[in-house]
Amino acid sequence: MIPNVVVNILNNYEYLANNLWVVIAALLIFIMTIAVGFLEIGELGLEYTESLIKTITITGTAIFVMAIVGFNTAFAPTIGGLIGNPFYAPGFLLGGFSGSVSGLLSGIWWSTGSSYFGTGLTTGTYFLFEAASASVTFALVSVIALKKVKFSALFIFSVVYFTIIWNLPAAWIWNPSGWLYLMGMRDFAGGLVVHAAAGAAGLAIVYQIWREERSRGLKESTQVKIKVSAGWLTLSILLLWVGWFGFNPGSVLAFNSDVLVVVITTFLAASASFISVMFFKYMQTKENPGLLYAVNGILMGLVIITPLAGFVSPGSAFILGLIGGPLFLAGEKFFSRFKWFTDPVGLFPVHLLGGAFGLSMIAFFTQNAFATASGNSNLPNGLLFGGGFLALKQLGIEEFGLVIVLIAVFAISFATIWIISKAIHGITVSEKSLEKTKFTIPVLNLAPEKDFEPVDFSEEKNEDIDKPVPKK
Amino acid sequence: MIPNVVVNILNNYEYLANNLWVVIAALLIFIMTIAVGFLEIGELGLEYTESLIKTITITGTAIFVMAIVGFNTAFAPTIGGLIGNPFYAPGFLLGGFSGSVSGLLSGIWWSTGSSYFGTGLTTGTYFLFEAASASVTFALVSVIALKKVKFSALFIFSVVYFTIIWNLPAAWIWNPSGWLYLMGMRDFAGGLVVHAAAGAAGLAIVYQIWREERSRGLKESTQVKIKVSAGWLTLSILLLWVGWFGFNPGSVLAFNSDVLVVVITTFLAASASFISVMFFKYMQTKENPGLLYAVNGILMGLVIITPLAGFVSPGSAFILGLIGGPLFLAGEKFFSRFKWFTDPVGLFPVHLLGGAFGLSMIAFFTQNAFATASGNSNLPNGLLFGGGFLALKQLGIEEFGLVIVLIAVFAISFATIWIISKAIHGITVSEKSLEKTKFTIPVLNLAPEKDFEPVDFSEEKNEDIDKPVPKK
Amino acid sequence: MIPNVVVNILNNYEYLANNLWVVIAALLIFIMTIAVGFLEIGELGLEYTESLIKTITITGTAIFVMAIVGFNTAFAPTIGGLIGNPFYAPGFLLGGFSGSVSGLLSGIWWSTGSSYFGTGLTTGTYFLFEAASASVTFALVSVIALKKVKFSALFIFSVVYFTIIWNLPAAWIWNPSGWLYLMGMRDFAGGLVVHAAAGAAGLAIVYQIWREERSRGLKESTQVKIKVSAGWLTLSILLLWVGWFGFNPGSVLAFNSDVLVVVITTFLAASASFISVMFFKYMQTKENPGLLYAVNGILMGLVIITPLAGFVSPGSAFILGLIGGPLFLAGEKFFSRFKWFTDPVGLFPVHLLGGAFGLSMIAFFTQNAFATASGNSNLPNGLLFGGGFLALKQLGIEEFGLVIVLIAVFAISFATIWIISKAIHGITVSEKSLEKTKFTIPVLNLAPEKDFEPVDFSEEKNEDIDKPVPKK
Repeated sequence: MIPNVVVNILNNYEYLANNLWVVIAALLIFIMTIAVGFLEIGELGLEYTESLIKTITITGTAIFVMAIVGFNTAFAPTIGGLIGNPFYAPGFLLGGFSGSVSGLLSGIWWSTGSSYFGTGLTTGTYFLFEAASASVTFALVSVIALKKVKFSALFIFSVVYFTIIWNLPAAWIWNPSGWLYLMGMRDFAGGLVVHAAAGAAGLAIVYQIWREERSRGLKESTQVKIKVSAGWLTLSILLLWVGWFGFNPGSVLAFNSDVLVVVITTFLAASASFISVMFFKYMQTKENPGLLYAVNGILMGLVIITPLAGFVSPGSAFILGLIGGPLFLAGEKFFSRFKWFTDPVGLFPVHLLGGAFGLSMIAFFTQNAFATASGNSNLPNGLLFGGGFLALKQLGIEEFGLVIVLIAVFAISFATIWIISKAIHGITVSEKSLEKTKFTIPVLNLAPEKDFEPVDFSEEKNEDIDKPVPKK
Repeated sequence: MIPNVVVNILNNYEYLANNLWVVIAALLIFIMTIAVGFLEIGELGLEYTESLIKTITITGTAIFVMAIVGFNTAFAPTIGGLIGNPFYAPGFLLGGFSGSVSGLLSGIWWSTGSSYFGTGLTTGTYFLFEAASASVTFALVSVIALKKVKFSALFIFSVVYFTIIWNLPAAWIWNPSGWLYLMGMRDFAGGLVVHAAAGAAGLAIVYQIWREERSRGLKESTQVKIKVSAGWLTLSILLLWVGWFGFNPGSVLAFNSDVLVVVITTFLAASASFISVMFFKYMQTKENPGLLYAVNGILMGLVIITPLAGFVSPGSAFILGLIGGPLFLAGEKFFSRFKWFTDPVGLFPVHLLGGAFGLSMIAFFTQNAFATASGNSNLPNGLLFGGGFLALKQLGIEEFGLVIVLIAVFAISFATIWIISKAIHGITVSEKSLEKTKFTIPVLNLAPEKDFEPVDFSEEKNEDIDKPVPKK
Repeated sequence: MIPNVVVNILNNYEYLANNLWVVIAALLIFIMTIAVGFLEIGELGLEYTESLIKTITITGTAIFVMAIVGFNTAFAPTIGGLIGNPFYAPGFLLGGFSGSVSGLLSGIWWSTGSSYFGTGLTTGTYFLFEAASASVTFALVSVIALKKVKFSALFIFSVVYFTIIWNLPAAWIWNPSGWLYLMGMRDFAGGLVVHAAAGAAGLAIVYQIWREERSRGLKESTQVKIKVSAGWLTLSILLLWVGWFGFNPGSVLAFNSDVLVVVITTFLAASASFISVMFFKYMQTKENPGLLYAVNGILMGLVIITPLAGFVSPGSAFILGLIGGPLFLAGEKFFSRFKWFTDPVGLFPVHLLGGAFGLSMIAFFTQNAFATASGNSNLPNGLLFGGGFLALKQLGIEEFGLVIVLIAVFAISFATIWIISKAIHGITVSEKSLEKTKFTIPVLNLAPEKDFEPVDFSEEKNEDIDKPVPKK
């Protein structure tokens, strides 16, 4: 029999469908974190097994840190618009051992109730969707770790990240009691909250990497080389594309006609950007640009459309995607000039640049009919659709929020990584210290686990079981 | 708050469930195009990276060409039963920049309204489902391109393909105003519209390849060798199997008890065909047939059941699958006799033969109770279930439609590829011209991107950004 | 038009949502069987292509044997609480050719009707969910086959397995007319029915392997070595994790708030166990434990939480996961002491031990509010939540059921494999006989299909088509 404690979502079939759709979207987003690991081995080669264990770790860490407190700091009713109340029910670890029916098993999360978004998501549904989103955001940040950053440093940083760094922009922009939300700022599925903010956090980390590299006498940062592994790279873009099917359309937080429109705007932007990158790159080189540009073309389109997928028409999504080609190529050229960091997977040209660009385009391409359908009826038409003064005001709000968030995320991220660096004597692994500390520091050391050149360590493994590995 | 513009699907919980199911099915089908790329590298070896970029390109191209016009030419109310009206609302590019509430954001696609299929799909839902189906159809066609066909030729062909070649059979058979549909022809999920028609289009392309190879003095077509890559081949069949979970059951265009029956008939046919191929092949060789036959066995069953998965009982599906074994082995033997083409991935023995066979079986195995449940109540019982004269008439209709569609698709495809060949001086890449034109024709040239022997081109990459690749 | 035969699930929107959710869960579980194949090549190396064809075969076999009779022996109304009635409608092969509206196309499966679970699943929905569960259970059993067991032996065993061995515990514990269910035993998603019982069946097979190895004069069983293939291992844990998103939450057999809670308890346990294994292993070796321990850590948490994911709070799930680390390491140490079998993929330390442990924890960690939400309102609070005498009684019931089921499954499995061994002259492939019988026994012989060193056998293949492979 259907237990009484769960009747609340059952007495409304729209709420039931909304929850079913959003939890499926959450599952699709959940896949994306490990997909970023495949993106790394696809672009850097199978010896980057660190990337795989890293994204597995991020997936796990995101879930429990978000459950402990991170969901509340982002999405509970805010304290002065600044940060979600960590004590708001269900509270720490989603209520911990509480079997009370208020909170997790029954009731609707406040911001999805009829006074706010009105989509009737349960606390569990909304938690899963947002925890998955936070997870993939940090996966993006982490692509600049490469083999350079100690696993311990990255892990400690991730705990802070899911507690406050990811959460503040979410509390400000996505939480209906956040100060930027109340000011009128909108960011549909995270052009800023996810992509550009990931770029700002990544910038803080590469800056600390550079400070440590420079102090070791390096003239420029060690550049990481591209080694395409075609199968894994293709699998990664497939999984990321599938994930975006949840990421953007799930951000409607409901299941209705607009969800389908958002799938369409998302996919059209991806297709157009793919074609645009391939075309302009071909024009430059008169050669087929290959898989690397194909994948980055798709990603660029997906990132650009993310902040406004629910606000624009299919035609606008197509135009935005076409802009993606020149923008990506220009961004790649620009960021490759700096030799004090290395960004082979493209955090800055794709996510930082694409996210910031897409966010700014809200004030140009929004059509109120589409924004209304995704639950943002207050968003005015963009400049290209007769928005006039209201659109200009919206542009000011978006740019203001963009600058504030990038500065805040960079500052907190740098403070965090700086403290971690002090605490563990540097976040980077020098060639030398790597050799010395091989058995004493939890640096990822998965060299034997290469795919294409498997090494037998079964004897060691059997010994592992009985005693610690001998310090050869 | 739930916006007013989307109330139309919300006031009917059945429609809501139908849309939710069909969009999930669309996502599953969406995966299949790139899965065909994995099938190619799984059967031909990882150096076929062209296959991967090809299927990524097809995925993107399908979405935008279908959005621009292809969805309408297939599914809008037809002009004289022949072709869908390209101007029907929402019109080109799904309405382009139109923010009007009629069309995409509200309203139900005409053919799923209560006067026709009665399942209440939104325009967006139905578009996504059919665009994904068109995409995977062309992926099947493209398996005969191998490394022989210029990427530019394939791309131009695909634009025509999604505009008219895929669309005509769909307009005739799946569109409730199509002339073959009105004549009583049925093809549940595309035994003809997808699989056999893909074979006819592929035949046109291999014929043009052969004409060009012959004119270069070849006595027989260059045969492509099989190199099984076990991991990728297994991944491809997993993804295709999962995709078929959407492909056939999604073709109910609704969510009801019959969807589950269709999953069952689909999976039973796949299982039975797998066992049948393995058994008969083992009988021939007294050796385990291996992964290649396992995969083709499953595919053969899935293709055979596709045109009638919603019309038959589990028992019939099992029988149909068992027939798959001898049929596949006979088809493989038959098609391998011809040396003027090469078809290592099995477009002809699996998709052309299996699709045509399954379509013909409609007139033998249909049971009206099942057909009714999938919304095809006019379909009579088959010959094996007492259908008698009505079943014979149905057989005539199906065979008539089969012949007409195969001829039409072959003819239009050949005309298209012939024109393209004239325009770009041949669709094939000769060994010689490949060398010469390496840097001037957009042939896929992904040699450095092998999986098992990664080559470092990061330095080139950094140069790429600043200037065109030097013509070494 | 919506056909009349399917109105039954349509007149209840909760039933519609329940069916939609559970069939999606079934699809996710369906993926897990082949994911176990990827787990094997991920841990043992790409030359274990047998693992891939094996799991493809299991997927297919499970569906058709469960359809023929296995679903009924497990889930039809039982004969005396012992075994489901194989003749219960729809009967063999899900009704075979019956087009009758009673059974598959209409009506609700009896145990999900309002007198029992009350979730309104159709026969097809429930069949797909349970067939997928049975399939993955046997995939777990089969990980001890390695390259040692003849494919024919495994295939015959699987037919018996899906007819009666998997089915008896399901009939006893999951069937609401089963004798252990009526006694009050609960096993939420299969800590015993799936994981521990797989261990018991696997034990029977390794015992028979050992008997044959010993009779050939071996002093200890040939140990299989670990060769990590990082990409495939990561893909396997991603697919298994995604599969568990259906496995546990789908076991609510409905879509309601509790489904979300079960996703959360499942994922929290996985995350906590991952961290716990990594931490304790690091403490032992002062080295990063690497991908192998990461993956086993996640699996251990997922297995432990499976029998009680729907009964406990997030806090308890977290604690249970943390226990997973020491438990796995102790189990690995314990089972590696025995040299008469080899278990490199961890059937015994993960699935047998983890499943049995989790089942026992029902009597400690259950909170009635959560159990009620998952439809098990009779389950008392655990000992840690004031359950007192009722919890002790529950502990007795669970342990009694555990012992009975493990003994029964081991006994029937051993009897089955012993008979098969007699019938086909041994289930194992000796090095010698492998050479001799290469072309006459359907042993898996896929050596040419390695991933990282592809061997061209296209010429053989072309010959295959015309005549049997020559007996070189």
